[in-house]
Amino acid sequence: MTTPLLPALHNDRFLRACWRLPTDCTPLWLMRQAGRYLPEYNATRARAGSFMGLATDPEYACEVTLQPLARYDLDAAILFSDILTVPDAMGLELNFVAGEGPQFAYPVRTEADVKRLAVPDMERLRYVFDAVSTIRTALRKPGADGVERGRVPLIGFSGSPWTLACYMVEGGGSDDFRTVKTMLYQRPDLLHRILQVNAEAVTAYLNAQIEAGAQAVMVFDSWGGALADGAFQAFSLAYTRQVLAGLKRQHDGVDIPRIVFTKGGGLWLEQIAERDCEVVGLDWTVNLGQARRRVADRVALQGNLDPMVLFAQPEQVAAEARRVLDDFGPVTAGSGHIFNLGHGINQFTPPEHVSALVEAVHSHSRR
Amino acid sequence: MTTPLLPALHNDRFLRACWRLPTDCTPLWLMRQAGRYLPEYNATRARAGSFMGLATDPEYACEVTLQPLARYDLDAAILFSDILTVPDAMGLELNFVAGEGPQFAYPVRTEADVKRLAVPDMERLRYVFDAVSTIRTALRKPGADGVERGRVPLIGFSGSPWTLACYMVEGGGSDDFRTVKTMLYQRPDLLHRILQVNAEAVTAYLNAQIEAGAQAVMVFDSWGGALADGAFQAFSLAYTRQVLAGLKRQHDGVDIPRIVFTKGGGLWLEQIAERDCEVVGLDWTVNLGQARRRVADRVALQGNLDPMVLFAQPEQVAAEARRVLDDFGPVTAGSGHIFNLGHGINQFTPPEHVSALVEAVHSHSRR
Repeated sequence: MTTPLLPALHNDRFLRACWRLPTDCTPLWLMRQAGRYLPEYNATRARAGSFMGLATDPEYACEVTLQPLARYDLDAAILFSDILTVPDAMGLELNFVAGEGPQFAYPVRTEADVKRLAVPDMERLRYVFDAVSTIRTALRKPGADGVERGRVPLIGFSGSPWTLACYMVEGGGSDDFRTVKTMLYQRPDLLHRILQVNAEAVTAYLNAQIEAGAQAVMVFDSWGGALADGAFQAFSLAYTRQVLAGLKRQHDGVDIPRIVFTKGGGLWLEQIAERDCEVVGLDWTVNLGQARRRVADRVALQGNLDPMVLFAQPEQVAAEARRVLDDFGPVTAGSGHIFNLGHGINQFTPPEHVSALVEAVHSHSRR
Repeated sequence: MTTPLLPALHNDRFLRACWRLPTDCTPLWLMRQAGRYLPEYNATRARAGSFMGLATDPEYACEVTLQPLARYDLDAAILFSDILTVPDAMGLELNFVAGEGPQFAYPVRTEADVKRLAVPDMERLRYVFDAVSTIRTALRKPGADGVERGRVPLIGFSGSPWTLACYMVEGGGSDDFRTVKTMLYQRPDLLHRILQVNAEAVTAYLNAQIEAGAQAVMVFDSWGGALADGAFQAFSLAYTRQVLAGLKRQHDGVDIPRIVFTKGGGLWLEQIAERDCEVVGLDWTVNLGQARRRVADRVALQGNLDPMVLFAQPEQVAAEARRVLDDFGPVTAGSGHIFNLGHGINQFTPPEHVSALVEAVHSHSRR
């Protein structure tokens, strides 16, 4: 590996760990770190009027993206947005129904629906790219030398082609994925066509985020683990691989690391890590030490505390965080660990328990 | 392994596969094979008035247990009952709320709740054991020699200690197991006490089913896969192991095989297979050929078609069934495969597609 080109930042631990370079301690950020467990987030959301009002306004999106960084010593910011912006831009019309979660007015179910589907004009997602550049600007802070640098890197993200397809075909969330799996087993040709459109759209979407200033990108394959062995490779992995291959590897003179997270994908870790990516995210069912041996440190690993640990008392949270770090083992030359949860933080999490987590991860891993 | 003692049956393929003895073809049965996808089941349930009316009446339970055997050439019957009978007998009072699933009137949450918990008098579960003996009698059929034998073996079952605890603490189903995991991380002592009571209760419950005539028993660890690595071993595996160790190994002069199914437990397969059991159930995320190599044929494997495959057309169902059989590979001396789904059959499954599945499994595997 040639030495990666890193941006000038006040804190570049996260990017260094992505590239498996030495760090002073293990970096951490939390999936859904800007969210409903924070009273300041709920206040901004109330002002915005609705979730989509929040997500589609670059100023509001910037405000909530920065909120967790004000409270906690986190090592990365992640764009505040929704996983379903791309299908919404395709014309499926995303709505949030109270107590029901996301729903599409026009799900993709019939042959005619599938034929109509096309990669959306990225201008319809301009609000996302504007949020990225607004956040990048807001992250700037002068150093002791008077030169402005970003406080921490900003991560952009998208759902994987398969995960987006789940929502697009089901029309919303699902317990059993009956509608999309019926299409998968009965009309695989239709599903492949949806996935092809999604892969092209996700590639363009992430590249536009990179151009707007995202300094790392993450693909959330939240529902990959619902697929059978064999189907996962054909309907999820293949299209995520296509996205990864199409991503800009550099922007503005720096390298852009790529993270892939397949929830429930622990059994397929070797195949996932073989993909052209720098970091693999893991959920809490995976033992990090074993995972590290399985991928032989060819990629950095991100994860994997059970978010429910945060409901224990602060000293118990700290003990569980230390256990995750010890499971990974010493970060040696050429290895990388980014501490995270194995899933998004729960909305009922006591915010002060997150402080205990951040403190424990940094102090226990300090080298 | 000494040669196991098998009961005299018209069809003992299932038991032979459990003991990894040669069979003429791969046996199959389906989790939740007596269920809402069958119109005759719905008719009986309507007569019974409610789900619990059905489950608590040995005659009705027998009637629905036999229904799938009348339609399909299945190789085992499984007791029709509910997974939550044991906590109900502990006094938690099980109710089924329309559209909400099972709910307990008295969940176990406080220290006082936990202290009160005790192994129930098995007489309160007499209706289950009566159902077992009623079904065993109803399965008898004279052979060509005029001697009555069972058509197929009858499987008894229970939820695992951990899976029962999930419902007991949550008070019903859960998406994130927040309540039970909060107890796990914050008050592990309370959860261990619940699990100890559950392990003793499940052991007594399965032993009473064996005494009533169950010819194999299965432990459903439906929620084991929700646990973090480490927590799974301490809070699920340890107590399932305790149950397995306490089970009667023989009854009425025949050996009783034990099946364990941890949904989402593929990563822990070696540890699960190390347990004192004859068969390990697998969900569809696991490749059967790889699983077989990982356990080195020390146990028989049961599974693992995605139940959603049954929504495809019959010829597609047959092709997917053949793929599962081919993944396992040839059943050689000392190996055993029991075909099943990787989860319960879905209530909207077209019944005629199940015929295609049964036919494909038997014909493709015929040796």
